[in-house]
Amino acid sequence: MKQVTFKEAMELWSTPERVVFITAVDSQGNHHIMTVGWKMRASFRPPMIAVAIGNQRRMRQMIDDSKEFVVAVPGTDLAREVLICGMPNLENEDRFAKCGFSRKPGTFVKAPLVERALCSFECKLSARVETGDHTLFIGEVVASWVNEEPKPNLLVVAAEPGYQVLAEDGPYKIGKVRS
Amino acid sequence: MKQVTFKEAMELWSTPERVVFITAVDSQGNHHIMTVGWKMRASFRPPMIAVAIGNQRRMRQMIDDSKEFVVAVPGTDLAREVLICGMPNLENEDRFAKCGFSRKPGTFVKAPLVERALCSFECKLSARVETGDHTLFIGEVVASWVNEEPKPNLLVVAAEPGYQVLAEDGPYKIGKVRS
Repeated sequence: MKQVTFKEAMELWSTPERVVFITAVDSQGNHHIMTVGWKMRASFRPPMIAVAIGNQRRMRQMIDDSKEFVVAVPGTDLAREVLICGMPNLENEDRFAKCGFSRKPGTFVKAPLVERALCSFECKLSARVETGDHTLFIGEVVASWVNEEPKPNLLVVAAEPGYQVLAEDGPYKIGKVRS
Repeated sequence: MKQVTFKEAMELWSTPERVVFITAVDSQGNHHIMTVGWKMRASFRPPMIAVAIGNQRRMRQMIDDSKEFVVAVPGTDLAREVLICGMPNLENEDRFAKCGFSRKPGTFVKAPLVERALCSFECKLSARVETGDHTLFIGEVVASWVNEEPKPNLLVVAAEPGYQVLAEDGPYKIGKVRS
C-alpha cells in the first residue's frame, strides 16, 4: 500500500457510479435541476435519502429555501440529459427546456418529478449537515414513483472494458454495461 | 409513471452498486468489520465520507465509542470477503480471521486498513445524524491509501446481462463487469 492524496485514492472509487437528478423549486417559483453523484439511501423506515450538494451550487440555496427536493434515477435514454444537468456552466440556463423535461410538480412537493426516469422520489428535508465544501441534505421520502417501461441502468462508466459510452464531455463518460 | 412503495422503487436503484468495508475498534479493543452499501463521498476540502449503519448493527456502537473508522473499497479478489462481512448472522464471529485480514491499525486511527483493498481511508468522526433505522456517520479523511496492484472494480451486480458473478448468497450477487 502507498499513502496518496484523497483525490488520487478516490479515483479508484469514483467509477462506475450511478448518478441521480435533483430537482427543486424555490419560493420565487424558480425551477432547477442538477446531476449529482454523491448520494445514498439513508433509512428504510422512515424511507430517507441523503445527497451532497457543493456549497457553490445554486441547488444548495434552493433546497435550503424550499425544504423539499426530488431525486430521480436516470436510465440509458437520459445520458445526454445527465451531461446537460451536470455542467456547472449551464447552471443558469433553462435545463428543463434543454432536456424537454416537464415542470409538473410532485404530489406532495413542488419540485418536479422526472417522468422519463427509472424512478423518482419526492423528499421533504429532514436534516442538513455542512461537511466542508458540500452540504449534506437528508430527505424523508414521501412518495416513490417508477416508470413502467423498463430501461437499462445508466452509469458514469469506469476506465476498464465492458461498458458502452452513450454520452461524454471531456473525462466524464456516461454509459451502460455492455450486454 | 406509477406510485409504488419506497422498497419497490429502490429496487430500480440499488444495483449495480459499489460496496465498501467499514472497520472499527472500540475502547475495549474489540475489532469489527462489516460490508456497507449506503455510503458516499461528502466533501473534497476537507475530504469527507459518509456511511449509513443500521441501528441494530454492532458497528454503530463501535463508531460511537471510538469516533473513528476506516472505509476500504474492495476489488474483485475480495468478493467472498464482501459476503462474509455482509452477513448479519456472522456479526459476532471473528470476520478478520475468516477473511485472513490483518488487525494492523491505520497511522492516525486504531481501526485496521484492509491491505488487499483497492483503497482505504482513515476517518475521524466529524458528525452523526440519526436518520430513522440507520445512523449516518460523517468522517473526515485523515489518510488515504491505495493498493499498488491494479484490480477490477467489484460491484453488487444488477439483474441485467453484462456482469460476471464471483460470489453469491441468496439474492445478493457480487461480481464485476464482464470485459
